[in-house]
Amino acid sequence: MRDTLITGIDTLLTMDPSVGEGPLGVLHDVSVHVDGSEITWIGPASDAPSARETIDGTGCIALPGLVDCHTHAVWAGSRADEFEKRLAGASYTSILEGGGGILSTVRASRAASEEQLAAGCASRLARMRARGVGTVEVKSGYGLEPAAELKLIQAARRAGKLTGVRVFPTFLGAHAIPPDWRSDREGYVEQVIEDQLPIVAQYASFIDVYVDDGAFTVEEGERILRAGMACGLKPRVHAEQIAYTGAAAMAARLGALSADHLERLDDAGVAAMAASGTIAGLLPGAMLYLRDTPPPVAKLREAGVPLAIATDLNPGSSPVDDLWACATLACLTMGLTVEEALRGITCVAADALGQPDLGRLRVGSPGPVVLVRPPPSEAPHPAVLVQHFGCPRIEAVVG
Amino acid sequence: MRDTLITGIDTLLTMDPSVGEGPLGVLHDVSVHVDGSEITWIGPASDAPSARETIDGTGCIALPGLVDCHTHAVWAGSRADEFEKRLAGASYTSILEGGGGILSTVRASRAASEEQLAAGCASRLARMRARGVGTVEVKSGYGLEPAAELKLIQAARRAGKLTGVRVFPTFLGAHAIPPDWRSDREGYVEQVIEDQLPIVAQYASFIDVYVDDGAFTVEEGERILRAGMACGLKPRVHAEQIAYTGAAAMAARLGALSADHLERLDDAGVAAMAASGTIAGLLPGAMLYLRDTPPPVAKLREAGVPLAIATDLNPGSSPVDDLWACATLACLTMGLTVEEALRGITCVAADALGQPDLGRLRVGSPGPVVLVRPPPSEAPHPAVLVQHFGCPRIEAVVG
Repeated sequence: MRDTLITGIDTLLTMDPSVGEGPLGVLHDVSVHVDGSEITWIGPASDAPSARETIDGTGCIALPGLVDCHTHAVWAGSRADEFEKRLAGASYTSILEGGGGILSTVRASRAASEEQLAAGCASRLARMRARGVGTVEVKSGYGLEPAAELKLIQAARRAGKLTGVRVFPTFLGAHAIPPDWRSDREGYVEQVIEDQLPIVAQYASFIDVYVDDGAFTVEEGERILRAGMACGLKPRVHAEQIAYTGAAAMAARLGALSADHLERLDDAGVAAMAASGTIAGLLPGAMLYLRDTPPPVAKLREAGVPLAIATDLNPGSSPVDDLWACATLACLTMGLTVEEALRGITCVAADALGQPDLGRLRVGSPGPVVLVRPPPSEAPHPAVLVQHFGCPRIEAVVG
Repeated sequence: MRDTLITGIDTLLTMDPSVGEGPLGVLHDVSVHVDGSEITWIGPASDAPSARETIDGTGCIALPGLVDCHTHAVWAGSRADEFEKRLAGASYTSILEGGGGILSTVRASRAASEEQLAAGCASRLARMRARGVGTVEVKSGYGLEPAAELKLIQAARRAGKLTGVRVFPTFLGAHAIPPDWRSDREGYVEQVIEDQLPIVAQYASFIDVYVDDGAFTVEEGERILRAGMACGLKPRVHAEQIAYTGAAAMAARLGALSADHLERLDDAGVAAMAASGTIAGLLPGAMLYLRDTPPPVAKLREAGVPLAIATDLNPGSSPVDDLWACATLACLTMGLTVEEALRGITCVAADALGQPDLGRLRVGSPGPVVLVRPPPSEAPHPAVLVQHFGCPRIEAVVG
C-alpha cells in the first residue's frame, strides 16, 4: 500500500466551507497524509506523521481529485468525417438523420469486443487521471440492444479497474431510437424497459434518458426513468439541449440528481430544479462544438440551483477530455465565477453523482489528492487554475 | 549529435502540396531520418538509412514542428485578479484605464531581472515544445523604456537557447502608452524611435505596434514601423481588434508580413491585405477571453489572404499556451476548415514569420518532427488532430 505525505502545501482547497475559508474551504501551509487511497491526516507540517514517500508541496495548490459527472467515454469508431462535414455547414440533426452521429458510433460499438471497448475507454480515463480526475461517470447508450448495452457498461467498469479511476456507470439505453425501430418507438421503449434494463441494472448506478427533438419524448423518458428507479437506479436526464421539451421539470419531479445541458431551459424548469434540489450539469464542450448559446446560468444561480461542470466526452458533439478547459469555458462562455467553476468540477459534480464524500479533501475522504504548481510568475491562488486555459502543471496525483 | 529514424509513419503531413496529396501534402507509409536538428531523409522504410535511435511510427501521424507566430510569452507578474474582475463584468478597456491590464504587467516586468524573465519564459516555451511547437515569435512590450525592452528581448532569446525552441523576438515598444507619457504621446513615440529602437534592433527580427482605441493611432503606428524598417526589422501589426482604425490597410501598404486580430476588419482592409500578400493572424484565444465576435474569415478566404493561427499567449487577454486548442477554436468559433487550421499552425504561420523553410517537413528543413498517436478508435487521419480538443497524444518531438 502506498503511503505518502505531501508537505507544506501553500494553498489547500478542501471544497468544504465548514473547515476552511470561503466557498472553496481554503487552508494554508498544511501537510496531507494519504494512505493507499484514503486521506488519513491533514494538519501543520510540524505535526505530520511519517510516511514512506514524501512529496514537497511548497508553492503549490492542492485540491481533491476532480469529478467528471457526465461522459460517454466508452465507444468505438470514428466521427472525424462528421466533424469535417459540420465545419462545412451540416447540422447535427441532419447528420443524425443521415445515419451519422450517434448511430454511426452505435454500429462501431456493437461490432467491437468488450476488450476493445475497455481498452479504448481505459486509454481515455488514463489521460483524465493524469490530469487529476479521480471519478468519472460513464454512460452506455451506443449499444441500444440488451447485449451491447451490457457490454458497454462492463467495458466501462473494467476500464475503471485498469486505470484506478472510480467509474460510475449510467444506463442510457434511451440515447437514440435505432433505425429499425423508427416505425415502432413504443416497441423500442418496451425493449429498453423489458429487455435491456433487467440485465444491466445490477451493474449500473444511474439511469439516464436523452429527451429531445429526434430522440425521446418527456412521456417516454419518464416511463423509462421510473422503470429504472424501480430497479434501484437513480435518475439523471439530458434535458433542454436542442429543443425545449419540459424534460428538466420532469426530471425535478422524479427527484433526479441532475439535469444536464439546459441550453433551452425555461423559468418553470429553473424553479422546478431549485425546488427538488436537482443539480444543473453544464456541458461547455457541447455548447462550443455545437456553436450553441449558453444555459440561463444567472437564473439558475439566483434560484439556488447548484452548478456542476462536465466534459460530456463523446466522439461527436464534445470530443473534449480536459475538464480543466471546460471549467474555463464555463466561465468565459456561460458566465460562471472562478469559485463556481472550481466547485463545479469537484464537490458539486460529486453531489451530482450522489457522492458527498467525493470532490472534497478531508480526513476520511477517498483520494486522489491533486497537487498543482502555479504557472511561472503566478502565486498559488485558486484563480490561476481557471484563468490559464486547459490542464495546469500537475505535480502529482496521489491516492 | 542525435541521429534518429522514425520508421513506418502511417500519415506524414509535409505541408508541401508539391510533394504530397492535397493542401497538407500527405505521404503514406514513409520513414524520416533526422540528424541533429535537420531532416535529412524521407522515403520508404525499406530504403531508410541506419540511425543510432529508432522510433516506431506505425499507426501514427507525423507533421513539422508547429509555429506559434504571435505570442507575448515573456512577462512577470500576475493578472489573476483581473480575470476575476472581468468575469464580474469589468471591460478590458476599463481595466486598462484603471492601471491594470498591460500596465500592471509592465510594472512587474520592469521590476524583474533578466534571469527571472528568462526562467519564466523558458518554462512556458518548454511546455509548448513538449506539445510539438518548434518555433515561437515572442514580443517585448512590457518594458516600454529602453533598458526594460532590451531586457525582455534578451530574456526571450535566452529562453529559446535554454529550451531548444527557435525564438523570433519582436520589438513592441509601442504596446501601450505608459501613464507618465499620457500627456505627451508624441514624446513617447519619439522615445520608442530614438531611444528604444536603436538599442534593441540588432537583437530583434520584427517590429510590431498595437494600433487601437486607447493605444496608438494609425499615424503613430506607421511612423514607428517605418523607423523599425529603416533599422532592418520587418513589420507586423496588431490591427482592428477593439476598434476599427484602418491599421490593416496601413500594414498592407508597408508590406507587413502579418496583420493580427482583425475582429473589426473592413472590406477595404481585406482587399489591401490580399493585394500586398499580408497574412491574417487569427487569435482565437483572445476572441474567447474577450468574448468577441470573429474576424471576417469567409471574406479573407475568398480574397485569398492566407490564414495563420497563434495563441497570443499573454497574461491578460489570452492566457492560452496550447496552439492545438487554438486550431480547434479557430474551426469552431471562426469557421476554418481542418486543412486551414493545420496549415495555420504550421506552414502559413511560418510564412507569417517570413520563414518558408519552417512549418514544412521536407529534406533539408530544420526540425523538429512531431509524431502523434491518434486517440483510441481513431485512424491516423489529419482531421483527428483538430476534432479532439487540445493537445493530442504526442509520441515524440524529434530534432
